Amino acid sequence: MAVKKLSRRRLLSDAGKVAAGAVIGAGILDVGLRPRALGAEKVPEWPWPYAKLDPDAVAERAYEAYYERGCMYGTFEGIVGELREKVGYPYTLIPTKMMTYGVGGVVGWSTLCGTLNGSSAAINLVTKDYDTIVNELMGWYTVTPMPIYKPQNPRVEIKTSSVSGSPICHVSVTKWCEAAGYKSMSPERKERCGRLAADVAAHAAELLNQLAAGAFAAAYTAPASVSECLACHGPDGTVGNTFGKMDCLMCHKPHG
Amino acid sequence: MAVKKLSRRRLLSDAGKVAAGAVIGAGILDVGLRPRALGAEKVPEWPWPYAKLDPDAVAERAYEAYYERGCMYGTFEGIVGELREKVGYPYTLIPTKMMTYGVGGVVGWSTLCGTLNGSSAAINLVTKDYDTIVNELMGWYTVTPMPIYKPQNPRVEIKTSSVSGSPICHVSVTKWCEAAGYKSMSPERKERCGRLAADVAAHAAELLNQLAAGAFAAAYTAPASVSECLACHGPDGTVGNTFGKMDCLMCHKPHG
Repeated sequence: MAVKKLSRRRLLSDAGKVAAGAVIGAGILDVGLRPRALGAEKVPEWPWPYAKLDPDAVAERAYEAYYERGCMYGTFEGIVGELREKVGYPYTLIPTKMMTYGVGGVVGWSTLCGTLNGSSAAINLVTKDYDTIVNELMGWYTVTPMPIYKPQNPRVEIKTSSVSGSPICHVSVTKWCEAAGYKSMSPERKERCGRLAADVAAHAAELLNQLAAGAFAAAYTAPASVSECLACHGPDGTVGNTFGKMDCLMCHKPHG
Repeated sequence: MAVKKLSRRRLLSDAGKVAAGAVIGAGILDVGLRPRALGAEKVPEWPWPYAKLDPDAVAERAYEAYYERGCMYGTFEGIVGELREKVGYPYTLIPTKMMTYGVGGVVGWSTLCGTLNGSSAAINLVTKDYDTIVNELMGWYTVTPMPIYKPQNPRVEIKTSSVSGSPICHVSVTKWCEAAGYKSMSPERKERCGRLAADVAAHAAELLNQLAAGAFAAAYTAPASVSECLACHGPDGTVGNTFGKMDCLMCHKPHG
């Protein structure tokens, strides 16, 4: 086959998937012949280019994606899907379905909340400052009454919000079930987690927007237990047997 | 510029980054002119093609990668880096640095162990059976004395192994610190987590190899507490306020 046998539609389609930006100003039909197009096939170095996102659009996309493949996919697709639509390449290259595993705190183990796992991966994809932004998102999650988001097309009506106190799925889900009076596999609890996906992805986008505008300032402060307990148990303490930022008193009793 | 001005080195380089497989049997110097090469720019549907990996090579790569960017990157780069070398495209498209955020149980929060987070993402990238394989890896992690791996070039000598009982970084690290008598930010503890990255990535590769050969059989069984406590607290129980697979007795006391 020679290149001239390719249809215009096929070339446009291929070019769009590879490097929408690179063909502007070049004869679209000979994109395959140009070294410039060849060069454009190279994947940009990490981090990938971020463009300011509409948190409401991210929230809505995350909510809908949650009902497709769960919480981690919900937030990752919420953010990366918007970037794919707004920026195009290179976000066309990544299969967002690879972030399904975090569902239910990793295939139902109830460890890390999947909405945080997916948002954090998206944040890490677009900025070298992922450490600061992810830390802020994790902290915000633990102290914020959620869900906040009201879907355009709610699957189920729910009214209760709760504060998780923890980024752990098990704690977060149980706190809401107890506050709302619904069981852990009820449609209401699932709806709550879908709305959480919207909230967490949208807040991640807000933080990334602030960072991109040079206007990010960390607001979260860790609970007192973290500094008090880690004074002895943390890296610089006499016991020194752990590290971390979770509220110790969620699982441990204080001792004298 | 015309394509003939491109050096052979440049073409080989570009072709290698885009579609190593697609140029076999084609004149390498005119790869840019062929519709076949254009077609290869399209990203394959998820899951991406898996090729049997050498667990020892995965382990060594994960260990070295851990010392570059931590535990989650260590296991993700351990597996995906080997696939990039063995399969080439499409593994050339994904920036593995995006999986740095899981370090220290997500930027030092000590939640989900980063070696599990990175391995699970790699597993989810290559198979629709990620649920089964990730579940097995998580379970195996909680019951296996680690580290097992002996690096070719160890940074630090360590001798102690421990059983985590949990996929949570905080628990896993503290158990080892207490068993080995080292502090949480000591070079020895970091070496332990580097070797864990090797162990977990290598076991993930073993499980994927078994799956690819049609020889995978789940071996992990959850501790008794999971079925006993969830009889009331799980989705189908009278309390029904949680779900999950972590050993309840790591944090809760049994009650009558």
